[in-house]
Amino acid sequence: MISQQQYQAAVKRASEMLAQAGIVLTPAEQTRIEVADFGLRELEQTGLEVITYVNTNRACAKELVMFPHQTCPEHRHPTLGGVPGKEETFRCRKGVVYLYVPGSRTSAPACRPPAGSEPYYTVWHEVCLKPGEQYTLSPDTLHWFQAGVEGAIVSEFSTRSTDEHDLFTDPRIKRAPEVTKD
Amino acid sequence: MISQQQYQAAVKRASEMLAQAGIVLTPAEQTRIEVADFGLRELEQTGLEVITYVNTNRACAKELVMFPHQTCPEHRHPTLGGVPGKEETFRCRKGVVYLYVPGSRTSAPACRPPAGSEPYYTVWHEVCLKPGEQYTLSPDTLHWFQAGVEGAIVSEFSTRSTDEHDLFTDPRIKRAPEVTKD
Repeated sequence: MISQQQYQAAVKRASEMLAQAGIVLTPAEQTRIEVADFGLRELEQTGLEVITYVNTNRACAKELVMFPHQTCPEHRHPTLGGVPGKEETFRCRKGVVYLYVPGSRTSAPACRPPAGSEPYYTVWHEVCLKPGEQYTLSPDTLHWFQAGVEGAIVSEFSTRSTDEHDLFTDPRIKRAPEVTKD
Repeated sequence: MISQQQYQAAVKRASEMLAQAGIVLTPAEQTRIEVADFGLRELEQTGLEVITYVNTNRACAKELVMFPHQTCPEHRHPTLGGVPGKEETFRCRKGVVYLYVPGSRTSAPACRPPAGSEPYYTVWHEVCLKPGEQYTLSPDTLHWFQAGVEGAIVSEFSTRSTDEHDLFTDPRIKRAPEVTKD
């Protein structure tokens, strides 16, 4: 649940961060930046701003905008009905993003989960991505990511995106935004 | 055929254009920018500079760098052995790029084919892409494109890229670069 006012403020802030990074959107694209608060009502802590450039049956490209220390919560893209799950490459364009994936637990990780959500963050192998660095995730791989102190802009190159099929570790999460009118 | 010296000069120039656009490559990526002269020995007229970020069995993302008025010659990505051909989205990031596809012939098009290659340019429906604008091509669709006066940087989001299967209208073209040692 997020208010229309909060939603529009986040759209504006994401739009400005993209412009500052030299990433040009058309006016139409600027109006359809998606703000995902994942239903947790703590957008600054748990959330993601997304502009989807293209999403066909075969290929998808997005720009992800993250405010300082904002977290995209742990989830995976399952294989369904014999169709392999989404394969994603995250490429950091600006700022720093810390990506967490299965594997050996990183000692002294750079990030903490949002307060109160600790049980829903279970993979702790840290991959730090600075501008120009990228990481490719296989389908069905649990992952979460958090921006550094300046926020981050991350390009996502992937197979078809079907957000409604994403499986989040936190059962409280609703992927589709619910926006109130006030 | 392109000399090592020409090749490296083109890599450097493309690298500088990317940096000026605020697009960060890692040092390793900077060394593997590909310069395609298509075997025509006229890189300034017919050529393309490419950095491939990722190319898996399912998804591919590249940055295309084009010098002023440089042309990527007409070609298509065929369906082979039941596998649909490459589907591509071109998104202009900087400069202007003119894309030509099948359809109604544009009167007074902005571009001309490179001199001497006119017979090998057969599709003339013009799509002008400025920064933030994009176009998605279905498999098997003939297309060619040319940068405007300032050159262009174009992101390509696509399914798997198999350059060796590209079919060019011009039979003289060799897609894989041949670099001489001097």
